[in-house]
Amino acid sequence: MQSISMRTDLYQLTMAQGYWKLGKDQQRAVFDLYFREHPFNGGYTIVCGLESLAKLAEHFCFTKADIDYLSTLCGNDQKPLFYPDFLQVLLTLQLTINIDAIPEGTAVFPKEPLLRVEGPLWECQLLETVLLNLINFPTLIATKASRICHAAGGDEIVEFGLRRAQGPDGGLTASRAAFVGGASSTSNVLAGQTFGIPVKGTHAHSWVMAFKDEQEAFDAYAEVLPNNCIFLVDTYDSLKGVRHAIQTGLKLKAKGHQFVGIRLDSGDLAKLSIEARKLLDEAGFSEAIIVASNELDEYRIAKLKSEGAAISVWGVGTRLATAYDQPALGGVYKLVALRGEDGQWYYKEKRTDDVRKKTMPGIHQVRRISRQGQFARDIVYDIYTPFHLQVMEEETYEDLLVPIVQNGKWIYNPPSLIDIQKRTISQIKLLPREITTLTPIGHYPVILSLPGASLL
Amino acid sequence: MQSISMRTDLYQLTMAQGYWKLGKDQQRAVFDLYFREHPFNGGYTIVCGLESLAKLAEHFCFTKADIDYLSTLCGNDQKPLFYPDFLQVLLTLQLTINIDAIPEGTAVFPKEPLLRVEGPLWECQLLETVLLNLINFPTLIATKASRICHAAGGDEIVEFGLRRAQGPDGGLTASRAAFVGGASSTSNVLAGQTFGIPVKGTHAHSWVMAFKDEQEAFDAYAEVLPNNCIFLVDTYDSLKGVRHAIQTGLKLKAKGHQFVGIRLDSGDLAKLSIEARKLLDEAGFSEAIIVASNELDEYRIAKLKSEGAAISVWGVGTRLATAYDQPALGGVYKLVALRGEDGQWYYKEKRTDDVRKKTMPGIHQVRRISRQGQFARDIVYDIYTPFHLQVMEEETYEDLLVPIVQNGKWIYNPPSLIDIQKRTISQIKLLPREITTLTPIGHYPVILSLPGASLL
Repeated sequence: MQSISMRTDLYQLTMAQGYWKLGKDQQRAVFDLYFREHPFNGGYTIVCGLESLAKLAEHFCFTKADIDYLSTLCGNDQKPLFYPDFLQVLLTLQLTINIDAIPEGTAVFPKEPLLRVEGPLWECQLLETVLLNLINFPTLIATKASRICHAAGGDEIVEFGLRRAQGPDGGLTASRAAFVGGASSTSNVLAGQTFGIPVKGTHAHSWVMAFKDEQEAFDAYAEVLPNNCIFLVDTYDSLKGVRHAIQTGLKLKAKGHQFVGIRLDSGDLAKLSIEARKLLDEAGFSEAIIVASNELDEYRIAKLKSEGAAISVWGVGTRLATAYDQPALGGVYKLVALRGEDGQWYYKEKRTDDVRKKTMPGIHQVRRISRQGQFARDIVYDIYTPFHLQVMEEETYEDLLVPIVQNGKWIYNPPSLIDIQKRTISQIKLLPREITTLTPIGHYPVILSLPGASLL
Repeated sequence: MQSISMRTDLYQLTMAQGYWKLGKDQQRAVFDLYFREHPFNGGYTIVCGLESLAKLAEHFCFTKADIDYLSTLCGNDQKPLFYPDFLQVLLTLQLTINIDAIPEGTAVFPKEPLLRVEGPLWECQLLETVLLNLINFPTLIATKASRICHAAGGDEIVEFGLRRAQGPDGGLTASRAAFVGGASSTSNVLAGQTFGIPVKGTHAHSWVMAFKDEQEAFDAYAEVLPNNCIFLVDTYDSLKGVRHAIQTGLKLKAKGHQFVGIRLDSGDLAKLSIEARKLLDEAGFSEAIIVASNELDEYRIAKLKSEGAAISVWGVGTRLATAYDQPALGGVYKLVALRGEDGQWYYKEKRTDDVRKKTMPGIHQVRRISRQGQFARDIVYDIYTPFHLQVMEEETYEDLLVPIVQNGKWIYNPPSLIDIQKRTISQIKLLPREITTLTPIGHYPVILSLPGASLL
């Protein structure tokens, strides 16, 4: 069993040791986890990944094997990098941190803390890498899935990226996040088993190739799997394939089974789907669906829809599961406050040469203001700075960060996965329409309230 | 414990059931796993990922829990998708397949089978998704790392992509594959522990922000971690940071410790590194190294080198660990031969509307011909078709596919990870120079020998 605590960058451990050696390890600190820009040049981001933090909080510890390994590491003088007494302290570490988080399926914006981590400096530091790793990727994929669902305009999206996902776990995490973002189902059996996501599938080209010809292959499939009949028609020639599928469909129908539909996987999907639709309708199969796949993403789906493609289910693999056009969310984890020996919080700011990398000091909460049932604006404010609420008549508000870990213990009771998906879908409806298009026109207003300054 | 066998697409299981129901499950088949185009518009690809197949072969089975889950799945008529007696057969499945593979660290080319899987049709089918998942991603990252190392021209590459990798396992797999491709070390502690890869690290901005000022932060670091002193200088102002690092470096030196160097993480890295080099040299620290990071990849490194950047170690994170500009390798797994009832092999070809997706029938081996110590060309040939070897005088050859799994058992004794890395590096030296540049000029010759046809 691999330790969650070892999923980290070496420097977190050396810094933790440094803080400990200097007697600063127990100094209280606050870190924000946030991103600086929406992925995919979009207008919103869907936060995802909290589910994995429960395991993190419960299982974060260093084992004897971990300590033994760390004791073998050397510095530039070939002497041990870690002090033996520090490693003993690590061995007994139990988390005492507090984490507040924005619930999964919430629409979020640049500079809003998705997580606020408060606790002893060394604990906060030891969690940096693993928290970023567990939030960045699912948030990226949930956002991508949401955009793809938007482009498909209510059509069903089946995620099937496992074979080209970034590792087995990459595939599993992607399947869950895609569902959070709005996908209806996945081909990933493990994701079905683990998360209860509906699983779906058709058949591969190899099935067709394993028989004398396509007609025989479809007939054989219908004979043994009569309740799962979506035929992949492009092994040799897509439209001939549709005709073979129809022949098999007629036999299915005669036996009282349903010919569910066909799948197109290559060629001009708009043109082929329109022609296939005509053939299916003429044969009396107006209920039969047309599934399409082949390197689809939100842009290709939007284009196919604009061309009048007669596609009702979209199979999206690689470009969803890897977020192909931007495969990483640039989430960061920054120190924003440190408690002094006098018991006061001191706010911390990184300035740097690059103005985009400037951090925002303060202990933050995110307030979302709604007006007439629509989201109107967010305020990122310092919880210790009194400020004028600026909520007008007919406005309501919600503070987004909620406690999920207290004193190192998981205290959050998350909604079911289907309810998280519903949250995503409802959030998008509550956002201004100008920012939910694939290319947003305008920004959602986020007011950054500096500590000590009242809002105006 | 999650079953490796459940990391699959649903359709593999339904097809396996179909083959079984039709009595075709034991029919012998051959599948090739290959890709159609080099990633990154490059001239070669480095195969990687075999290591994980050992576990696959040893642990591939379906548990009672898996079967229980599968028995809950329904078809379109809301009746069970799987026959109970099929699920019982699944429960007793033990792999009997044979796999030949091209060893990790080998340079490979489009259409060359990286794996050739031979065995009962249903077993071959059940392995498709997981094999693609386990080979596609590591091969992609090893290739990316190799390109980055090429651009760095022998400088040290430290991989530190974990925080933005696609999931925890994505990060771990990426660290190993990056090492295979030529990276010297990683920041990923778990990768160090799991694979023995050297781990390295500096410190974060948060360290600097946790102290009164930068000078105090560097001094404190040097006091408690004197054998790991690479100072991150850009928290407030990079060149002022270099001066602070030098001040601390002088104190370190006075105490007999080594000031290893500095790290730049923002701004104009070429200009800043040249100025930092001057400051370090003037202070008598000509041995001190300059580490650079900030969204680096092979193109940015090549550009910085061309601008005369005084950087000796390159920290590469996101763009390596996610293969940012092409985050998926389009590997496929295609049926190429099927044994008939008469005991003969029948070769299979998918034609399709898209000529690029045409498959290549035959039971393949890859022969690599060398001339004067350099790779001259490859021949993908059918092992049952006699062909003229076409090896001229002064030419030697090697057949690349070697047995790794026989009758379901792992029989391969892989080289050590460091030897795999050495293989990568030596392979690239043996390739024509025109194809190892970032943008290749020309193609490495791969001759596709059709079955039944002799060469020439």
